[in-house]
Amino acid sequence: MAKNVEFFFDVVSPTAYVAHKRLPAIAAATGATVRYRPMLLGGVMKATGNAPPFSVPAKGAYFGVDLNRYIQKHAVPFTMNPHFPINSLSLMRAAAGLEGAPHFAEFVDAMFDAMWLEPRNMGDAATAAAAMREAGLDADAILAVAESQEAKDRLKATTEEAVSRGAFGAPTFFVGDEMFFGQDRLDWVEEALR
Amino acid sequence: MAKNVEFFFDVVSPTAYVAHKRLPAIAAATGATVRYRPMLLGGVMKATGNAPPFSVPAKGAYFGVDLNRYIQKHAVPFTMNPHFPINSLSLMRAAAGLEGAPHFAEFVDAMFDAMWLEPRNMGDAATAAAAMREAGLDADAILAVAESQEAKDRLKATTEEAVSRGAFGAPTFFVGDEMFFGQDRLDWVEEALR
Repeated sequence: MAKNVEFFFDVVSPTAYVAHKRLPAIAAATGATVRYRPMLLGGVMKATGNAPPFSVPAKGAYFGVDLNRYIQKHAVPFTMNPHFPINSLSLMRAAAGLEGAPHFAEFVDAMFDAMWLEPRNMGDAATAAAAMREAGLDADAILAVAESQEAKDRLKATTEEAVSRGAFGAPTFFVGDEMFFGQDRLDWVEEALR
Repeated sequence: MAKNVEFFFDVVSPTAYVAHKRLPAIAAATGATVRYRPMLLGGVMKATGNAPPFSVPAKGAYFGVDLNRYIQKHAVPFTMNPHFPINSLSLMRAAAGLEGAPHFAEFVDAMFDAMWLEPRNMGDAATAAAAMREAGLDADAILAVAESQEAKDRLKATTEEAVSRGAFGAPTFFVGDEMFFGQDRLDWVEEALR
């Protein structure tokens, strides 16, 4: 039986974006499937008492330098998003509500690109809707999904599951019970999948 | 001209210990020299507003799991020190005072081992002195060095230099102006040295 990797993500995270871009090659090389698990990074931070690297200026500065090294190494197209802070709650509710739906992968891919490639002010509802429409998605239907109780409940449940399994940030990967944090641990994820 | 890597360390850091054990192979493979730069990790944390991983329980738990993966991969002998918190001020003052002296490398190596291999309560002066003596070092002379104004000033200056160059934790490496944080970035350090 082929292994699978669970990818707990929030589109607001640039390192989750880089992981999203690197995962297809790892899946292809190992025959593994990737299960996308939408969670709310802000919820994980709040529940664990963690804080983003930018809360320490020197760490935030190095974060950018370090991320750029990986971006160059793996030839990941990337543009730092100048519109921060961005609230990803609505987008991640939509992602949670679309899990299992036909356009889930397309939606996630489009939102990651709108956040870290184009990059747009995705906390703004009209900007986000435009990004969805330009990606050929039904923005009105997706925003309705985001407002559904089911989507809200599922995002909350997945976020709580991530925390209960040990997550404290994004991206977080699980191969079985083995947890890996950060796009810089994808070599370890690949090894665990072999 | 062969390149060199500056290794800013505090013996209180387990990841600095792992770096200390891995650096000789990297130096041998690249022909580089390693310059040991004693700094006070607590001073770096205070100056930058950073906090150790253990300040977030989930992060602290993962820190141990993650470190163990690298220890296994690189076959580094290691025992988690049960005596924390340990105050490394006196040891690092001694290290700073011994820079350039004949027994500097021997002292640093013995203190790292006493902290993360044996492991001892190295914040206790008598325990630390015993570890020095068992390593064939003149503990009384070293403790006198630690109390010298020159050693205090040098440790403070190196710590401030590290912070001014962007450091926010240990281990921190510089290859020229390029900074790398963490033993998990040693592959990047090796690449920078080639």
